[in-house]
Amino acid sequence: MLMVPGPSEPEPEVLTTLALPILPHYGEKWKAVYDDTTTKLQKIFKTDNDVIIVPVPGQLAVEMAVANLVPRGEEAFVCVNGYFSEMIVSMVEYWGGKPVVIRSGLGKAVTQDQVEEAIEKKSDPSGKPIFVVQNETSTGVVSPVEAILKVCKEHGMLTVLDSISAFGGMDVRVDEWGADYAIGYASKAIGGVFGAEPVAVSGDAWKAAKKNSDKIHTRFLNLNVWAKAIEEMGPWGHPHPSSMPTSIIVGLRKAVDLVLKEGLANRYRRHEEVAEFTRKSLGELGLKLFPDKRYLSNTVSVASVDPEVDKKLRGGLASRYDIMIAGGLGELSGKIIRIGHMGTSATIQAVSTTIAAMDAVLRDIRKK
Amino acid sequence: MLMVPGPSEPEPEVLTTLALPILPHYGEKWKAVYDDTTTKLQKIFKTDNDVIIVPVPGQLAVEMAVANLVPRGEEAFVCVNGYFSEMIVSMVEYWGGKPVVIRSGLGKAVTQDQVEEAIEKKSDPSGKPIFVVQNETSTGVVSPVEAILKVCKEHGMLTVLDSISAFGGMDVRVDEWGADYAIGYASKAIGGVFGAEPVAVSGDAWKAAKKNSDKIHTRFLNLNVWAKAIEEMGPWGHPHPSSMPTSIIVGLRKAVDLVLKEGLANRYRRHEEVAEFTRKSLGELGLKLFPDKRYLSNTVSVASVDPEVDKKLRGGLASRYDIMIAGGLGELSGKIIRIGHMGTSATIQAVSTTIAAMDAVLRDIRKK
Repeated sequence: MLMVPGPSEPEPEVLTTLALPILPHYGEKWKAVYDDTTTKLQKIFKTDNDVIIVPVPGQLAVEMAVANLVPRGEEAFVCVNGYFSEMIVSMVEYWGGKPVVIRSGLGKAVTQDQVEEAIEKKSDPSGKPIFVVQNETSTGVVSPVEAILKVCKEHGMLTVLDSISAFGGMDVRVDEWGADYAIGYASKAIGGVFGAEPVAVSGDAWKAAKKNSDKIHTRFLNLNVWAKAIEEMGPWGHPHPSSMPTSIIVGLRKAVDLVLKEGLANRYRRHEEVAEFTRKSLGELGLKLFPDKRYLSNTVSVASVDPEVDKKLRGGLASRYDIMIAGGLGELSGKIIRIGHMGTSATIQAVSTTIAAMDAVLRDIRKK
Repeated sequence: MLMVPGPSEPEPEVLTTLALPILPHYGEKWKAVYDDTTTKLQKIFKTDNDVIIVPVPGQLAVEMAVANLVPRGEEAFVCVNGYFSEMIVSMVEYWGGKPVVIRSGLGKAVTQDQVEEAIEKKSDPSGKPIFVVQNETSTGVVSPVEAILKVCKEHGMLTVLDSISAFGGMDVRVDEWGADYAIGYASKAIGGVFGAEPVAVSGDAWKAAKKNSDKIHTRFLNLNVWAKAIEEMGPWGHPHPSSMPTSIIVGLRKAVDLVLKEGLANRYRRHEEVAEFTRKSLGELGLKLFPDKRYLSNTVSVASVDPEVDKKLRGGLASRYDIMIAGGLGELSGKIIRIGHMGTSATIQAVSTTIAAMDAVLRDIRKK
């Protein structure tokens, strides 16, 4: 059983779609599937913005935002509170931008006040991009993205929202929050399989990419190339610049159908209840939650452990119960355990099975 | 029935693997699958070089070569004889390189002599990259890649071989030919599903990427980031910098198993025989082959048509027989039809069904 913060087990109905005869990535039939999928994804993003599906890993969908919105030599703000937000700093550097890092301690979130302070130091933050990770799976922290994005929009900035590990499990409101480039995910809280990521692109983001045309040093990740493909090849059912993993997207559509059938509010409530149950259960096992209580994620729970327990606990769960939970990344390696409860794993049953197994393994560890 | 030059229908046994429970993209089980897949892919590439699997569209796997091997402001040779090789010129430009184009007419291949002439004009071609597309699906032309690569290696150049539409259907010999960065494909002549591409990387290509470190302006597509991931995360079963579409790769492994079971020599002979049958049959339908006879591809056959026939023929095949063949791209739009016979569609049965349907539709068109 996969109780990691992604991938999660796909919905069984999604897996069966994958064995269907394959669709080519162009033509009328494909256009109907693609358009239907993006239209439904708009509902999860809560946006009227265009949604495109980028057939790359999530981190490359984030890099696509960097390539388009961070002109070489110019500044980009990055809110950093863990491994995945730290990675964005590295991406900005690779693409030749100048990261302006707004950092919080691990287990905490960057606050609205910190963001306000950082951008007010600049004479003209207007038009500059800011990157915010909604849900930092490396620490189990959810950021106050609504407040942060609001401040940035007031300053006319371009906002990039990485909702990868929230999408489908926690509320995302692209239009209300003013996210110009928002990244979802197919195989975490949605219950699809990985291989293609939905991205919501605002009019301002398309415009910024157009303005940056000469400075976007990639063909495939270039939003202008996507805009051209949508315009020129869209009519014959090929609204993207390359081939597409159509099976993955047919699976994603099925997953999205199931999400909408459950209802977004119900789904978010389910994730919230399961998260609360997980936290309470971890406490009963004598484990202390790692994150600050103000910022607890509803799709991943993180507890502190010592290195000895980390190894024995994860090893025991895997070998004795075939349950996979995650350890810490980077400097938190050996210091925390991370339990994903997203999509199919966001059930009391999945979590209580995991907790029961953890209880058994921990008793053995503590006995010795 | 998909009789286009990709995607081809996956092998049925591949499709059924996709419905299996999903593997996470790390850990011992995954490492075993990934290593087994890359080891078997080495046999198709005929190489001892490292094989990595890049979870992106084929064209982005080509762009990855550009990003790593074409330092900004420097020259890169590109052999151009159609839509897909032309696209590489555009990629080199996007990444800030200076393309040196070696061009042949459409329906022809760039020759060894042309390449020799182009590189001898340069005072020092050593270390410079050259890009060659083995099989140009836009025109149905196979290039004399062995001869071209040999000349380039004699000049100490870095060779990039795009074998996307040949891989699994026509011979590829990475080590013997001296290809430093060779790109295969999962869903054309192999019979897998698309979403991840195998790439064979030579020691010289890794070294060139290392030397170019400061000039590779991407994180995920950066071979140095891959090298670091392989070294640091490989031991715990994560020899790549991001998540992976494990289902697609499990499917690819099954496809590769089927390829090796058939035997490469048998498989290439099958593609050759089916290609000859297709060409002969097209002649019997009164259609003239588009490419120069010296360079006929074994995975795609291309015939000249006039725009009226193109539209009615492809439309009739689709609506009356549910058979999809392809039309021309770019300046060849309306002027040619393209029939893919690769992997599962490289059978006398699939082609003769297609030809019989074409015969019926063409008779109706000609009657009017």
